[in-house]
Parts: sequence; structure tokens; C-alpha cells
Amino acid sequence: MSAQEHLRDKLRVIHNLNHASQYLSWDEAVMMPKEGGIARADSLATLRFLVHEIITSTELGELIEAAKDERPTDKWEIANLRVIEHERVRSTAVPSDLVVALSKASSACEQEWRERRAENDWKSVVPLLSAVVRLTKERAVSLGEVLQFDPYDALLDEYEPGLNQKFIDPLFSRLVEFLPGFVDDILTRQGPRQKFQGNFSPQRQLELAKRLMAPLGFNFSQGRIDTSHHPFSCGNLTDTRITTRFGDDDFLESMYAVLHETGHALYQQGLPRKPCDQPVGRSLGMMIHESQSLFMEMQICRGNSFLRFAKPIIEDALDVQGNGTPWNLETLSKAVRRVERGKIRVESDETTYPLHVVLRYEIEKALLRDELTVEEIPEMWNQLMKDSFGIELGEDYKDGCMQDVHWFAGLIGYFPCYSLGALTAAQLYQAMVRDIGDIEDDFAAGQFERSLGWQRDKIHSRGQLIPSFELIESVTGSPLGCEAFISHVTSRYGSAS
Amino acid sequence: MSAQEHLRDKLRVIHNLNHASQYLSWDEAVMMPKEGGIARADSLATLRFLVHEIITSTELGELIEAAKDERPTDKWEIANLRVIEHERVRSTAVPSDLVVALSKASSACEQEWRERRAENDWKSVVPLLSAVVRLTKERAVSLGEVLQFDPYDALLDEYEPGLNQKFIDPLFSRLVEFLPGFVDDILTRQGPRQKFQGNFSPQRQLELAKRLMAPLGFNFSQGRIDTSHHPFSCGNLTDTRITTRFGDDDFLESMYAVLHETGHALYQQGLPRKPCDQPVGRSLGMMIHESQSLFMEMQICRGNSFLRFAKPIIEDALDVQGNGTPWNLETLSKAVRRVERGKIRVESDETTYPLHVVLRYEIEKALLRDELTVEEIPEMWNQLMKDSFGIELGEDYKDGCMQDVHWFAGLIGYFPCYSLGALTAAQLYQAMVRDIGDIEDDFAAGQFERSLGWQRDKIHSRGQLIPSFELIESVTGSPLGCEAFISHVTSRYGSAS
Repeated sequence: MSAQEHLRDKLRVIHNLNHASQYLSWDEAVMMPKEGGIARADSLATLRFLVHEIITSTELGELIEAAKDERPTDKWEIANLRVIEHERVRSTAVPSDLVVALSKASSACEQEWRERRAENDWKSVVPLLSAVVRLTKERAVSLGEVLQFDPYDALLDEYEPGLNQKFIDPLFSRLVEFLPGFVDDILTRQGPRQKFQGNFSPQRQLELAKRLMAPLGFNFSQGRIDTSHHPFSCGNLTDTRITTRFGDDDFLESMYAVLHETGHALYQQGLPRKPCDQPVGRSLGMMIHESQSLFMEMQICRGNSFLRFAKPIIEDALDVQGNGTPWNLETLSKAVRRVERGKIRVESDETTYPLHVVLRYEIEKALLRDELTVEEIPEMWNQLMKDSFGIELGEDYKDGCMQDVHWFAGLIGYFPCYSLGALTAAQLYQAMVRDIGDIEDDFAAGQFERSLGWQRDKIHSRGQLIPSFELIESVTGSPLGCEAFISHVTSRYGSAS
Repeated sequence: MSAQEHLRDKLRVIHNLNHASQYLSWDEAVMMPKEGGIARADSLATLRFLVHEIITSTELGELIEAAKDERPTDKWEIANLRVIEHERVRSTAVPSDLVVALSKASSACEQEWRERRAENDWKSVVPLLSAVVRLTKERAVSLGEVLQFDPYDALLDEYEPGLNQKFIDPLFSRLVEFLPGFVDDILTRQGPRQKFQGNFSPQRQLELAKRLMAPLGFNFSQGRIDTSHHPFSCGNLTDTRITTRFGDDDFLESMYAVLHETGHALYQQGLPRKPCDQPVGRSLGMMIHESQSLFMEMQICRGNSFLRFAKPIIEDALDVQGNGTPWNLETLSKAVRRVERGKIRVESDETTYPLHVVLRYEIEKALLRDELTVEEIPEMWNQLMKDSFGIELGEDYKDGCMQDVHWFAGLIGYFPCYSLGALTAAQLYQAMVRDIGDIEDDFAAGQFERSLGWQRDKIHSRGQLIPSFELIESVTGSPLGCEAFISHVTSRYGSAS
């Protein structure tokens, strides 16, 4: 057996353990009874510990070297070695017991958050969140020493390899410079909120979700949709799962959460078949993943052409009708593209969303630089909320710093990927139109094969063959910037529609 | 750290990997989309392989010896060593690659069975089932050599340590001698089939299930109920899951499947808290597990006192009423205790059930002795079905040899535990009445604390502290026999009721 084959076998074990963690985490969020949490956290910690042990083992290090010595010529093999080597460098930088401690702390904290958020009970989560943040900082410092990165950069690099504050800062500055005035302008022109009524029972909304997901390309024999506290997607290419949550008096929030997660899911379902159990067969970082969800949600599904296709399906599934305002394509478009300075990130629109992300980015930077404690998060959150959105939160933690699962689940350094993903989505969409021409008529007719085909060809089927920033440049012709995004929002919102 | 502590840590890793396998298997049967099967089988195979590697490692062998050298005096520690040593002897007897091959073959075969059974397509499952049987035989031979058991005994010992054909044969002979004539007698006296109507929608039946499970003691913050092809239970004490399936025109089949699985679940939920992540904290073999499900289903829930309690709940949940025959306690009792020579094991009553088990036992013996091939199973099945039940199956595989998941999932040697469990349940019930007196009024009043308390005290909370056959003898005062069962069915069915 060659070293490459031997290495692939080892990596397959890692893949199979990650498979287990992934679906057990899904189960934890979607199915598990309340008191199952402690045993589940223990099991997940063991699985992650074993993966960490294999990745950091001397044996794997030697196998990687031996595989390199065989001088592979296949581009997948070469990329596979690049990916696992990066992962090994990151993993060996962190001691095993810290990995286990962080996994347990995050599971416990996420469980607690699920219960306490509903009660707006911030105080009760502080001790567990403090533990998560403290352990994450320890981890960031260990990583930073080895990678010679600033600690926060070491976390950013985890969610999107190569990402750092130096790259983010000018892009976010440009957005912060452009968006507030742009949003002000929209708000002065925007009419009253559209209100629709209909049968918004969970069953009907789920039915609607499935009727939209299928034509977009979601394969239900390789996936499913469920409900959870916070929408998410997970899974591998033959079993991709998304979740949503349903409101009583509005269907659009849940519908767009579904369309967003469907974008993630289509990426997973489109990954390359051949090396699907190897690191190179996985999706790229979270920036690219978010670009695929936003490509679907923002670029395609908030446009008029998609709405032309979706409107009769919505009507049929939910018996929807006007309530004060009439129910027609114009009012639906206005509702779908409504701009609002709101409290909740996941309910926000594409023009204010980046401001939510910048807020979280600033808090994360401050936490990592020891300029802020966990206890002080609400204070800084509220101050930023007031500055950027003009909103006074007071003691509304539920819709403030407790709204997102990320920090409670140990995901610090993840948020910037959302807005970088939005920039990427706009830049990719521009490139797609350049490559295959205007495609709006397809969407209006419910035909999504050409756009999905382009995404599969350029992004999905490549797995991790090409690093993210290189891929963006090679597909679009330029490095990632803000201009395609600004041009997109300007053309969509620049004049009253 | 003492050797005992070190050993417990190792065994905790095994527990956590088994936790993963268990809930991933649940997911496979209940949630997983169709095409997820191959990746799931790979992941389960890896998890089982890793458990097998740890159990068979020289390190674990040495730890067990070192722990024994510390001469533990705690009875739980001593029993823990006994249990893991038995498991290690069994595990070292089977080569790792055979364990992996069998795990993959079983997952693939079970998946195939799920699809083919609905189509009554026996031919398509023969190749996969042949692989499972062939690999199981190899395993049985390896085990038998080390344990100095006949190969089939080596399989029986897996499901209930110490069980063998020499023990089973006289008990089953006694049942085969007694039951057919007894059943004939009941059938001549039994009136026409009771027919009830009502709202038997899955939602209503699920509602009924939950309303019965809760008073019986099932803790829903530590468990859940779902639907699957074949009812089963799984999970650990803080997350116990059962499944059922719903018929359109009858509610009793599903209701009693739920009551049966609830018996299993209460055993799991009652296991000792302290050593819950150690082998001694697990449940005993499948004979004892079945005794707990049948204690609930047969001893308690098919009796008149339970029905007095359940009848108004059924009425309320399902709007049930008579259909030809009136709906009252007498007709309900008759329906619940109806005896029938039917094709399906899980639909059969307690007097004919053992005959179904003996049929499977004879086929398993023949398979293991190379007196029968997988291709010939339907022939032998049909012949035995004709001899014991007077039923001609023809090409109805769906309700014949394809009705049970067991063989397709690699569970050969399991079936005898069902009927031995029935014998145990009857003997335990007799002992409970001896210990705490007549308890029928409790049941009629919906009070199950005293009986559950007795079970918890005598069985559940002891985990694997005492081996099964010893436990039965110490709790009931005599070795396991047929007489309590025969006395139970004679008193329940002996005269027209």
C-alpha cells in the first residue's frame, strides 16, 4: 500500500468520526430530549478528542511527509495534502485537553443558552459563556504562537483560511462609510410595511418550504428539513439537512431562512463525489459557504424574477392575501426587500446586515484583546446598537447579545464570514451574468438548472481544490472587494421601486 | 491515578463511542434520507471498529489485570471487571476486519430490506442477507473456538450471557408440547373478532401513546417517541427513545407496541446513575430486557385492571366506538386478549408468540449447522408455518421471512430471548405479587409507582451487578422455568372470559 493510500485510509477514519459528530450535533439541536445534554456533550467531546488525536499523531505527520515524498501528480491528491497539512498545523498547536475542555464547555453553554434565551436570562449564562470565551482565548493564543498570527486572526483563519483583520478592516470600513447614509436614503423613500394574512401554520409553512426547495435543486432523497431554535444547515453530500423556525404572523422570515439554508445545502449536495471522504472533498471556509447561501437568498430569491415564480406557489400553499395592502407582485417585492434598522441580525435585510456583523466583529476584537469581559458584553452591545441603529435595547438580552447561538456554541471569529460572503455572492453573481448572460427569465419560469450548473461547475464540484481567495479571483477576474456588492444594492435599492 | 480509575476512563471512551453508534442507528431508522445510507454505514463501521480496537487492545488487557491486582472491594467495581472481561474475551475472539465487514454488510442489508420488504421482493435481498449470514457464521465459529461453545451457542451467549441450546431446548419443548392444544381450546371458545371505529390518524394515536406512557412512568424530558418501519427502543438513561408504527383501521396493534417499548424504556431510564458510563451500568442481556417489556405489555397492560384505567383515555384520544360489536370493557378485553394463529410475530398474542419464536430458532439452528442456505429460508419458513399454524404463505415473503428486521440487521441468535423474556416476566410478576401483595387496584386507578418501584429496586437499578440467571433465581426464588408462564396463560385464557 502506498503512503498516499495509507494516508487516505487514516483521513477516512477522521471523516467517519466527523460524520458522527455532525449528525449527533444536528440531533442535539433538533431531536434530543432536554436531559440528554450531558451524555451527548461527553460523546461529542470523545469524538472530537479522537479526531484531534489522529490529526496530531506522529503517525499522521509521517504519513503526510511520506505521501509528499511520493510526489503525487494528481491535482486532487496535491490539494488534499495541502488541506490536511494546514489542518494538522492548526491542530498540533492546541493541546488535546484544551480541545476536550472547550468542546464540553461549548456543549454545556449552548444547552444553557437554549433554555435561558427564552427567559431573557443573561446572568445565568455568564459563567458558562465566560468559560467558553476564556478557553477560546487560550486556544487563540496557542494557535497564534504557532502560526505567528495575532490571536483573533488565528480564530478568523479557522473559519476561512487566510482571513485576517488586515484584510477585513478596509472592507468593513468601506461598508460602514457607505451603508448608513444609503440606508437613510432608502428609509426616507420607503412606504409603510406590507401586511399579508393567510394560513401560517407550521405544517403549511413547511409545505411551502419544500415546494420551493425542490425546484431550486434540493434533493430530498439526500436531505431533509426540520425545525430548531436557530436555522442552520449541516450534513454531507448524500445527507444534507437544513432547519428553520416558524413565526405565527409572518411567513417571509421563515421562507427566506429556508432559501438561505437551501443555498448552503446545494453547496453540500454539489460537492465532488470521488474524494467525498477526504479533506479536499469538503466545502471551503465559511465565507464561501455563506456566499452560496446569499447567492441563493439575496442575489436570486429577493429579485423580482424569482418572486414571479414563487408568488403563485405561496398563494396556493398559504392561502395568502392582502391585509390593508393588497397582495400582488409589487407589494410582495416591497415586503421582501424592506429595509429596516432592527435588533435581530437574522431578520435584517441585506443593507443593514453588515452593520450587525461589524458590531459583533468589534465585540470579538475587544474580547480577544482583553479590552472587554463577558459581563460587559451587553453594555458594549447596547452602545453599538444605539450608535449604528439608533436602537435602545435596555435589558432586552433575548433580542440583543443572546440572539445568536454562535458565541454560546464556541464559534468566535465566524461572524465576519457572513458579510464577506455577501460581498463574494455579489461578485460571483456578476461573474455568472458575464459568463452565461442575463438569466432572469429562467428564474421567472422556475428554471434554476443553468445558475446551479454554473455554481456547481465553478464552486461546488471543486471542493477544496483551490483556496477560497484564489478561487474568487480566478472565477470573477478580480480579488474580493466591496464594489460588486455596492453596485448590487445600489441597483436594487438605489431608486424607489 | 489507580489502575481502576485509568480503566474507567478507557471504558468511558467506549461508552461515548457506543452512545454515538446508538443514536446514529436510531437516526438511520427514523430520520435519515434514503441516500444517506452508505456514508452512515461507513461511519458506524468506523465507530464499531474503534470500540473493538480499544476492547481488544493489549493496553486494556493489562489495565484489567492491574485493576484486579488492586483487589477492589466495591461490589460495583468487581462486577464492572466481570462484565468487561467477558466482553473482552468475546471481542478478542473475532478479528477486527471481520467486525468491520459484518457491520458494513448489516447496514447495507438492513437498508435494502427497508426498501424491498414493501415490494415483497425476497430475491433482491438474498445476496446481501447471504453475506450477513456467511460473516455471522465466521464470527460464530471464531467465538465458539475461544469460548469452547458450539457456534450457535456462541451467538446466543452474545444476547444473553450464559444462554445456550441445552438450556433452551427443554423449555421450548415444554412450550411446544403445551401451547398448540391450549391454543386450539381457546380458539373453539373464542367469539368473533371485535371491531371498533374511531379517529385513528397518526396524530391521534401518537397523542394516545403519550397519554399512556406518562402515567406508566416514562419521563419525556429524558426520552421521545417516533415512528419507524419496525418498533424498537434505544438510548441511555437520560435519553431513551422508542418508536412505533401506526395502522389506519386499528389502534390496538400500535398501542401495544408502544406499551411494549415503554417497558424497555423504563428499564433504561431506571438504570443506576452512578456507573452509567461503565459496562456494569448497562442493562443485562436481551432476555431480561424482553422480560421488562413483556412485564409491561403482557403482565400489566393486557389485564382487566389496566384496561379499566386506559379505556376512558382511549375513548377521549381516539373518539372510539363500537362497530358491529359495542365498545365496552368486556369487548375491549376480548380484543386485547384475542388469540389467533397469524402470520406476523409482532402482531401475535402471548399464547402463539412462542411458536413464532421456535420457528425462527429452528431456522437459525439449521443455518448455523449448514443444513440450510439463505435461498432455502422461505421454503423452511413456509413448511414450519404450515406445521405450527396451519397457514400457507406461498410467495408472501413480506409477511413471512421478510417480516422482521433482525436477520437483515445481523441479529442472529436474538429471537429466543423474546420467549425466554416472556417466561421471565411471568415468573417476576408472580414474585412481585408475593412480595407486595395484590396490586390490581393500583393499575385500575392509574397508579404504577408501586410496581415500577419494585422493578426498579429488584432489576433496573442493579444494572449488570448480578448476572441474569442468578438475578432471576435470587428475586423469584427459583431458576427460570415454564411453570409461571403456563400458570399465567392458564389463569388468563383457561376458561372463556
